[in-house]
Amino acid sequence: MKKSSFGVVFSLLLVAVVLFSKACWAADFLNPVEDVQKCDRALHVMAMLLVGFGFLMVFVKKYGRSALTATFLLVSVAIPLYICLNSSGLFGGFKPGVEGLILAEFAAAGLLICAGAVLGRLKMSQYILLGLLFVPCYMLNEWILLSGGLGLLSKGGFADTGGSIVIHAFGALFGLGLIMTMTTQKEFETPIETDAVSDRFSMLGSMVLWIFWPSFCAALVPVARVPQTVVNVVIALCGATLATYITSCVLRRKISIADIANASLAGGVAIGSTCDHANPGSSIIIGLCAGVLSVFGFAVIQSWLQKKIAKVDTCGVMYLHGLPGLMGGIAAVFVVSGLNNRIQLTGIVFAVSLAFLSGYVSGRVLELFGRRVTAYEDAEEFLDA
Amino acid sequence: MKKSSFGVVFSLLLVAVVLFSKACWAADFLNPVEDVQKCDRALHVMAMLLVGFGFLMVFVKKYGRSALTATFLLVSVAIPLYICLNSSGLFGGFKPGVEGLILAEFAAAGLLICAGAVLGRLKMSQYILLGLLFVPCYMLNEWILLSGGLGLLSKGGFADTGGSIVIHAFGALFGLGLIMTMTTQKEFETPIETDAVSDRFSMLGSMVLWIFWPSFCAALVPVARVPQTVVNVVIALCGATLATYITSCVLRRKISIADIANASLAGGVAIGSTCDHANPGSSIIIGLCAGVLSVFGFAVIQSWLQKKIAKVDTCGVMYLHGLPGLMGGIAAVFVVSGLNNRIQLTGIVFAVSLAFLSGYVSGRVLELFGRRVTAYEDAEEFLDA
Amino acid sequence: MKKSSFGVVFSLLLVAVVLFSKACWAADFLNPVEDVQKCDRALHVMAMLLVGFGFLMVFVKKYGRSALTATFLLVSVAIPLYICLNSSGLFGGFKPGVEGLILAEFAAAGLLICAGAVLGRLKMSQYILLGLLFVPCYMLNEWILLSGGLGLLSKGGFADTGGSIVIHAFGALFGLGLIMTMTTQKEFETPIETDAVSDRFSMLGSMVLWIFWPSFCAALVPVARVPQTVVNVVIALCGATLATYITSCVLRRKISIADIANASLAGGVAIGSTCDHANPGSSIIIGLCAGVLSVFGFAVIQSWLQKKIAKVDTCGVMYLHGLPGLMGGIAAVFVVSGLNNRIQLTGIVFAVSLAFLSGYVSGRVLELFGRRVTAYEDAEEFLDA
Repeated sequence: MKKSSFGVVFSLLLVAVVLFSKACWAADFLNPVEDVQKCDRALHVMAMLLVGFGFLMVFVKKYGRSALTATFLLVSVAIPLYICLNSSGLFGGFKPGVEGLILAEFAAAGLLICAGAVLGRLKMSQYILLGLLFVPCYMLNEWILLSGGLGLLSKGGFADTGGSIVIHAFGALFGLGLIMTMTTQKEFETPIETDAVSDRFSMLGSMVLWIFWPSFCAALVPVARVPQTVVNVVIALCGATLATYITSCVLRRKISIADIANASLAGGVAIGSTCDHANPGSSIIIGLCAGVLSVFGFAVIQSWLQKKIAKVDTCGVMYLHGLPGLMGGIAAVFVVSGLNNRIQLTGIVFAVSLAFLSGYVSGRVLELFGRRVTAYEDAEEFLDA
Repeated sequence: MKKSSFGVVFSLLLVAVVLFSKACWAADFLNPVEDVQKCDRALHVMAMLLVGFGFLMVFVKKYGRSALTATFLLVSVAIPLYICLNSSGLFGGFKPGVEGLILAEFAAAGLLICAGAVLGRLKMSQYILLGLLFVPCYMLNEWILLSGGLGLLSKGGFADTGGSIVIHAFGALFGLGLIMTMTTQKEFETPIETDAVSDRFSMLGSMVLWIFWPSFCAALVPVARVPQTVVNVVIALCGATLATYITSCVLRRKISIADIANASLAGGVAIGSTCDHANPGSSIIIGLCAGVLSVFGFAVIQSWLQKKIAKVDTCGVMYLHGLPGLMGGIAAVFVVSGLNNRIQLTGIVFAVSLAFLSGYVSGRVLELFGRRVTAYEDAEEFLDA
Repeated sequence: MKKSSFGVVFSLLLVAVVLFSKACWAADFLNPVEDVQKCDRALHVMAMLLVGFGFLMVFVKKYGRSALTATFLLVSVAIPLYICLNSSGLFGGFKPGVEGLILAEFAAAGLLICAGAVLGRLKMSQYILLGLLFVPCYMLNEWILLSGGLGLLSKGGFADTGGSIVIHAFGALFGLGLIMTMTTQKEFETPIETDAVSDRFSMLGSMVLWIFWPSFCAALVPVARVPQTVVNVVIALCGATLATYITSCVLRRKISIADIANASLAGGVAIGSTCDHANPGSSIIIGLCAGVLSVFGFAVIQSWLQKKIAKVDTCGVMYLHGLPGLMGGIAAVFVVSGLNNRIQLTGIVFAVSLAFLSGYVSGRVLELFGRRVTAYEDAEEFLDA
């Protein structure tokens, strides 16, 4: 990291402080008990962001320290940046307090997803830059889809409570855009190695994501619908986990632990858009389909596509977050009664396009700051590694 | 896994979907805030099931991927199956929403306990089958003991808030029944190896169980008694942990990390029946006794019994869940005022008998589906292991 | 551990049981829902104590089983002991129920901090003795600073909601006092080794502390101020994490994963005193400064001081808890409006002096019980290690 970059980072931090000083507290004293319950869910989401996403990415054997440090940095960039921009009013009205925090965490989730696509091929400072580029694009998309921003879609018409489209598909397609601009021949030929230890850490991340996914989906749901949402998400995750095991056995000769760690979560991704409208029956169907689709992605599409475009999606985010997210967004057409299907489908197409495009442009910007010498290894940037 | 098995599994999933479509929401809008608090505890219990039980079983060095995958599958079978059967009304009235979810998690806990007894000696598909066999037996026992099912015990007369008997002793004795039908000579002679990494993962599982045990016991306790229950459980766990260390030092020349990881939790197992009636004094006594009893089981009874019956209880579930659970159920006679001792003791004897018997029969059924070639190794069923 | 020690331990446990029998429930039925919310935060704090502090200390490669066992024992000694002494009324009025539990957890946090300074150089039984010595000193300090004990400071005049001084600085300086009495020449020359596995476990502990720190600071805050407190703590942690990365890069040629795992948490330590009074602007400034200060401590002060005094602070608690804690206590002078600065500064000086002195005396007492033969290795006390 050059000294000039430090100047840039410190200037940005200074701007942050100034912006923050404007973000005064507009505490909502009407429902303090319910706000504290939101705080609980905010911490559950934080567990998903750090231990969940972080350790899921530790499957890369020699890149564990880097993956965890990158997770810390991505979260620590995304959350204050979101709160700053949110308080600036640039993307619609200011959401104060814990609601703003949860929305910021959602942005951090999207950022971690797109970073998963290029994991191991960015310098640590470039992850920070990626965060600075991603968050405004994410907020623009969120504003347009969920709050009627720019008047493109009528407010409240788009169903995406748990973020199948706004968080998961957006993050994955941003990541796809990113990788179109990178992956050298040498990186393409470097195997991404795992071992028994990194696999177990990865399963830890996966389980933490699974456990707290109901809080993620229910984070901002009105109190009376929280229990229903929680049960739906659990059922969808159970369905995806069973489908993952069966599909992994069928499509490969043996079980792939990477399928189990990743595709089991596809139920949570896919139930997002409909988590507060589904019933147990539709939840299990969505979960089962998402598990099958995700394993099919990992086992069949990934190797075919990577050869075709000669690019690497390190964590396979297209198959855990991309396809199941799109499936979840489309499922809303069948599950949510009274939904305007035109708005739902227009929104999906818009989000996909914006994500891919902004990801591509961000990748070009990141390129200007150079590349790692060795991919997927801690030793280049860490002491004693 | 044969193709015929897939047919069976998919048929069962279809049946599940049909049953689920009946499980409509009977949301309780009277106490939404309290229901959300139950949701929080439901997620804490989920953390115990997946990270807690899952990683506790990772102590088997070469079987970590399998233990974690089995945990995922057992939970994903038990919860939807319980919710289906619950909504069918087969075992008493339908408990909707988050209460039903928590009861389903309790069943999953019992299932994970009995699976711990045969860990490493079942094929992955047999864990799923085990789940299908265990849950109906569990529900029958739960119904008879706690809801006056079949009129055998008068409703409400059996004290077991945190499941010392219904969950822990039942699961352990079901596991004892299971192992009576298996363990080949070769398996008996195969050492169950651990190493520094698997020990640390196991301690992670143990700590997660310890941390959230108060939520497990208080999951369905009325709001006004939750704080008391939480403090009692913490005190019992502290007592068991101290007693475990001392007893481990006394009975062995050095400390056994397996004792620490397991017997420290015996306080939580034993306080279950009385967690909402005890006071700090009785809680610490129950905890101390449970720790001593559990270490005595692991250090003395286990090796003696295993030689005697030539069977292996992989995780020692009899000594963590079995004996301390029975102790907890009996302790209710002394701690809970106004308890009908005849009902309490009859219930315990009934649960023990039903568990052992149904475990034995389930083991015979599992036998029909063959056996693993190599015990305690991932490589037989996993890619790249 | 000699037989005589067992006698002592069992006698103490007996005394505990007698004291406990007095600790009857004075349940507060006025706000049961809010009490249950406190229970949630109490469990979050427990996750920090066991998985957080425990795994953060697993960075010592060959001492993982011991560090985790010590964590279990320290927590299991501190919590019942605090509850006993609390119910005895020796240090001010009795705080019943979940409030008493949370205060006991705070004491356990302080104890874990001071134990971090001597980690790897005490026998397991000496950790228990350390707990018995620490808790009364901690309670004396807490009583004087926060409840006007002995009439030294006027009650309510000292700002320290999240324990920057009472927990973090007190624990760290008690630890500094401890190490003044120990570290043999051989121990001083023994390197404290880490590897890729122990580093990843350490990051797990760090992340769990980070995630639940908002609950730690907000544990006893009135319900209406909890959301604000939570957001402030998250912002401070983000600031510290970013500052840690940048400072680690600047002061060392490469990133140190130990800096990331530790100094990222300094924001939580430093925001403690002011967490319920700060705004986002002051929170990020406190976080940034704490991160810089902590890394400076680890990278510059630690090696200089260790050489100078020929003592080892195993976990560097002075640089994670000591300096950032003092900074946080002093920051209250600038952030909390209407604070009596004389009381705040007198309290800090008093806490520092009492901590160092009582730590030194405790170290002399611990010396009487001998020393380990080999530092930083499980094998001396554990089977199969």
